[in-house]
Amino acid sequence: MNRQNDILVIGSVAFDAIETPFGKTDKIIGGAATYISLSASYLNNEGRTHLVAVVGDDFPQEGLDMFDQKGIDTRGLEIKAGGKTFFWSGKYHNDMNTRDTLVTELNVLGEFDPVLPEEYRSIPFVMLGNLDPSVQRSVIEQMETRPELIVMDTMDFWIENTRDELMKTLKLVDVLSINDEEARQLSGEYSLVKASRKILSMGPKVLVIKKGEHGALLFNERQVYFAPALPLEDVFDPTGAGDTFAGGFIGHIASTGQTSFEEMKRGILFGSALASFCVERFGIERLEDLTKSEITGRLREFIDLVQIDMEFV
Amino acid sequence: MNRQNDILVIGSVAFDAIETPFGKTDKIIGGAATYISLSASYLNNEGRTHLVAVVGDDFPQEGLDMFDQKGIDTRGLEIKAGGKTFFWSGKYHNDMNTRDTLVTELNVLGEFDPVLPEEYRSIPFVMLGNLDPSVQRSVIEQMETRPELIVMDTMDFWIENTRDELMKTLKLVDVLSINDEEARQLSGEYSLVKASRKILSMGPKVLVIKKGEHGALLFNERQVYFAPALPLEDVFDPTGAGDTFAGGFIGHIASTGQTSFEEMKRGILFGSALASFCVERFGIERLEDLTKSEITGRLREFIDLVQIDMEFV
Repeated sequence: MNRQNDILVIGSVAFDAIETPFGKTDKIIGGAATYISLSASYLNNEGRTHLVAVVGDDFPQEGLDMFDQKGIDTRGLEIKAGGKTFFWSGKYHNDMNTRDTLVTELNVLGEFDPVLPEEYRSIPFVMLGNLDPSVQRSVIEQMETRPELIVMDTMDFWIENTRDELMKTLKLVDVLSINDEEARQLSGEYSLVKASRKILSMGPKVLVIKKGEHGALLFNERQVYFAPALPLEDVFDPTGAGDTFAGGFIGHIASTGQTSFEEMKRGILFGSALASFCVERFGIERLEDLTKSEITGRLREFIDLVQIDMEFV
Repeated sequence: MNRQNDILVIGSVAFDAIETPFGKTDKIIGGAATYISLSASYLNNEGRTHLVAVVGDDFPQEGLDMFDQKGIDTRGLEIKAGGKTFFWSGKYHNDMNTRDTLVTELNVLGEFDPVLPEEYRSIPFVMLGNLDPSVQRSVIEQMETRPELIVMDTMDFWIENTRDELMKTLKLVDVLSINDEEARQLSGEYSLVKASRKILSMGPKVLVIKKGEHGALLFNERQVYFAPALPLEDVFDPTGAGDTFAGGFIGHIASTGQTSFEEMKRGILFGSALASFCVERFGIERLEDLTKSEITGRLREFIDLVQIDMEFV
């Protein structure tokens, strides 16, 4: 089988219980790797998405079926007998930009030590979802051929508590995708321009800064691109939007097989479009039944939003 | 004289004392109408900018000369004998997005009751800087011919304390230019899409929502445009950025004589470009010595920032 467009996704598969001003859910399926692989699956028709994660045996068959229906390979999804799936519960404030974490039960994720199946070790596109940076690094070290592109996400917890490990992992990746607060925390710079320069000196050749409802920035050493966010009627539930964004990014890159800055620009626009669907309903609900034409239509809205004709003398 | 591209600017001319993490100033020349007319003067080579404001006789000759050098007509700038010029003092926090007002001395601005010179009453482009909405309305009522375009700014204080007056004035204007928090306060809606719909039902045909470092949105009933903000190395002093933005907007519109949505899109991009210069130094300093090619170069940066080539199947 030709694997030149395949994606390897490592991260959490979880249960989430979410409360927003619009309502609340019981335990629903979530987790970074879930959002990433669902999102990527819509864009990468050329290759397959392979999921590496761990759940407990409380994880329902319908969850596995859902991945299957999207063509996502779950052979790397370990089901730990007698274990419980990672559980997160959170409550969003009225502005939807801040949230309180109510419960974090790591459960089987606490001892996640992924061993890549032999056939996964030459997959060209690797997306490391938010995890302990030493776990992320162990995945990179198991790869037998250097992937075309390694993208990683991280979060405030790792920046604060495992900085040395994080710095070692950063040296090995091509693209870091984080939000604006994390970029400031990691670099110690408030200005995102200055932050990007410092972070690019830590290893990544490309930095994506997600600004939520304010869009996303893409930096390399010489260039910068800004993808706007679409002004939305309502944000129903922001859970997973950042992961959906990352999945759209790597999904587009993998489908083209190209890693140029121009292709990455298109990647973050696809990521933004997918994320804009994600927030329309609770959890992964909206990501389960998207159509190609919905995605293309949304992408056009993003392009039209900033479209301007201007002549220069 | 042909006045078809002329602009009438009403607002404050003031002394400001500003403190930022980068330093502090003594009393320097500021005020909404100052920033607006300086900014507009760079773009409107076809017409003249006419300033209507009030200062005390403590206002220095060099301030008057500065307007003169930019071709701004100050015959409508009343100098009140024995009066003191409006004084504002503020201190910005480290993130530059929030500030504390330390001193507000209204002085002569407290009794500002502008009487338009006869020759100002048919100027086609009117910019009402942030002022008591009943004062803004009195200006509109003095116009003998309905202007081509009336743009107004306002702020949280008037929304909170003089809402009835504000609503009466809103019915008479074409464009309202406010920031995101003011849009939320005025409409009672958090979503800017919903806010825009409510505000457009209050009178204005077009709404500009300024989001500071996150760009600006332009809405009419059917369309929306987003102008990005340029990621900046440093924001040195944000004072006057919103007024500079409004001045760039009306300056461009007046120079073309066109009020189509497409022209307004270009207008807010010009406004954004001018505002990005404004924040580079204290007060009006950077707005005193701009060149045409600097402005064109900056505009290209804004356009390049969101430039993307994308084919649709």
